[in-house]
Amino acid sequence: MTALQPKNDEILNPLDILQNQMRKDMACVNEMILQHMQSEVPLIPQLASYLIAAGGKRIRPLLTLSCTALFDGDMMRAHRLSAAVEFIHTATLLHDDVVDDSDERRGKKSANVIFGNEASVLVGDFLFSRAFQLMVADGSLDVLRILSNASAIIAEGEVLQLAAQNNLATTMQDYKAVIAGKTASLFAAACEVGPVIAGQDEATIKAMREYGMNLGMAFQVIDDVLDYSATQEKLGKAVGDDFREGKMTAPVLIAIEKSDAQERTFWQRTLGDKDQSDADLQTAKDIIAKHGALETGMALAAQYGEVAIQQLDVIADSALKETLVNLVSFTLNREY
Amino acid sequence: MTALQPKNDEILNPLDILQNQMRKDMACVNEMILQHMQSEVPLIPQLASYLIAAGGKRIRPLLTLSCTALFDGDMMRAHRLSAAVEFIHTATLLHDDVVDDSDERRGKKSANVIFGNEASVLVGDFLFSRAFQLMVADGSLDVLRILSNASAIIAEGEVLQLAAQNNLATTMQDYKAVIAGKTASLFAAACEVGPVIAGQDEATIKAMREYGMNLGMAFQVIDDVLDYSATQEKLGKAVGDDFREGKMTAPVLIAIEKSDAQERTFWQRTLGDKDQSDADLQTAKDIIAKHGALETGMALAAQYGEVAIQQLDVIADSALKETLVNLVSFTLNREY
Repeated sequence: MTALQPKNDEILNPLDILQNQMRKDMACVNEMILQHMQSEVPLIPQLASYLIAAGGKRIRPLLTLSCTALFDGDMMRAHRLSAAVEFIHTATLLHDDVVDDSDERRGKKSANVIFGNEASVLVGDFLFSRAFQLMVADGSLDVLRILSNASAIIAEGEVLQLAAQNNLATTMQDYKAVIAGKTASLFAAACEVGPVIAGQDEATIKAMREYGMNLGMAFQVIDDVLDYSATQEKLGKAVGDDFREGKMTAPVLIAIEKSDAQERTFWQRTLGDKDQSDADLQTAKDIIAKHGALETGMALAAQYGEVAIQQLDVIADSALKETLVNLVSFTLNREY
Repeated sequence: MTALQPKNDEILNPLDILQNQMRKDMACVNEMILQHMQSEVPLIPQLASYLIAAGGKRIRPLLTLSCTALFDGDMMRAHRLSAAVEFIHTATLLHDDVVDDSDERRGKKSANVIFGNEASVLVGDFLFSRAFQLMVADGSLDVLRILSNASAIIAEGEVLQLAAQNNLATTMQDYKAVIAGKTASLFAAACEVGPVIAGQDEATIKAMREYGMNLGMAFQVIDDVLDYSATQEKLGKAVGDDFREGKMTAPVLIAIEKSDAQERTFWQRTLGDKDQSDADLQTAKDIIAKHGALETGMALAAQYGEVAIQQLDVIADSALKETLVNLVSFTLNREY
């Protein structure tokens, strides 16, 4: 009987054991996050902890942890870099909520509502800087390159989204470029960091990066579907925000492509000319439903999910690999 | 006759020769800046070039250039890192103007007025990321450490300033902490980078860092004096912005300390309770003048300037050293 075996007769599922280990790793990451969001300026931990304590899926640090453990990499480094990844994500959330003038996030009033836009911008900048301080402390220029590139690409994606807002000429290709930048690039980077610090070869690094990229695409498409299909309670933020903001996301783009002249007039008025009344969200949902745009969106996400899973062919079967497969299922089937 | 001597009989001042060289270096930095603010997303170079083309004093990159040249460091590296320093500065300007809701910057409408707050926040994030990409390309973890630390400290200083806004209990010590963070830390880092890449010893690095720190303190105190004393035309932005925003800067803090009960009531109403009418700025200026607060502020700046110059004792006399001394004079005597 080895030390790793349970002391009672209960047979543990290896995935459970790993998940237990992963839970410990995630606890270390959370500690790292709490520790490094401290500052002598009280408003910083106040605002940061408000958002971070509200939860969130922690899917990006989980990716860095899993993709490091998968290749037997140094988990102490993974904890620190996972915190860096989550800080970059948190910084973009704070800035997004200012940009979108959002009211709700993670089931609570968003930070900009409580603390003001000014503080949200500045604390975002602080967390972004902290992310780079954590990477510098880790000391890998490769990791710094991966995550500084991702940060620039995220900002480009966000600006592209801003430029496409209320623009009915936006294509699915434009949309894919937006979500590749604003979402998938950080998923890709979070995954890439693991095999990089574990010293894997180029092909493995590329496969893990592509896994993250495709998972991120699936994640964002589902996010955009949920903005028309979820309940506010489950989503933790207002449903229909994308519609109100005139964001040209998958459900709308798919529906517009199939819309007749009358429906196009509706999209032009509500999204193009920003002339909306309260009843318009329901009409939008009806047109989207009529054209099966949510299902088409989910099918698109499923395609990305499939490509993500295909990338994992390069690695041997293991419980951790199963976790990465399960993450794709979670992403596709989630209701929040 | 060596190659360095002028071909005609005109005797060139060595400072002129060096300034010519420095102008060439600055042209390289400007090229670097233009090149790296490019993006496939057109709004990014549009917005960035709007602000960068408007000019600015370029004092931070000049510090990095001078402090590298002073120790015979690699000027190719200095060009790149000077651009990184200027990008960090530009990113904070973009975010500041959003936070302060400014209308004017460098004699033009500020970027947030032309392109919107959303774009200013996001392009700021982009330039900040670009700064880190430039540092990664340079490859020095020491430089990355210096500038990621400075970035975090800048954000802390800005948040501290936000928390002190409209707070009459703010002390001169609080004010010094704010300007040390938001302004002097980047001056210090810009100077420190030079001797670091030129491989100087700890004492020299520390002296140059302190030079930058004290120059930065002087620079910001003068900035805050100018906000009450300059003309809008020379300043390139509205005079009295600090008063309208309730910023607790040196002129006001010095005046408040010497104010009688009636004057304190005025400060409480205008700054504490944000209840201002058009005539109040003139009254504020009158009270500030009555107590000689601008002169006291300038004397404080001059003290910082003196300490900055003292730091230069560790380095041998040279034309470049003279440039650094002249930069202190410029900082103290500037009208914009």
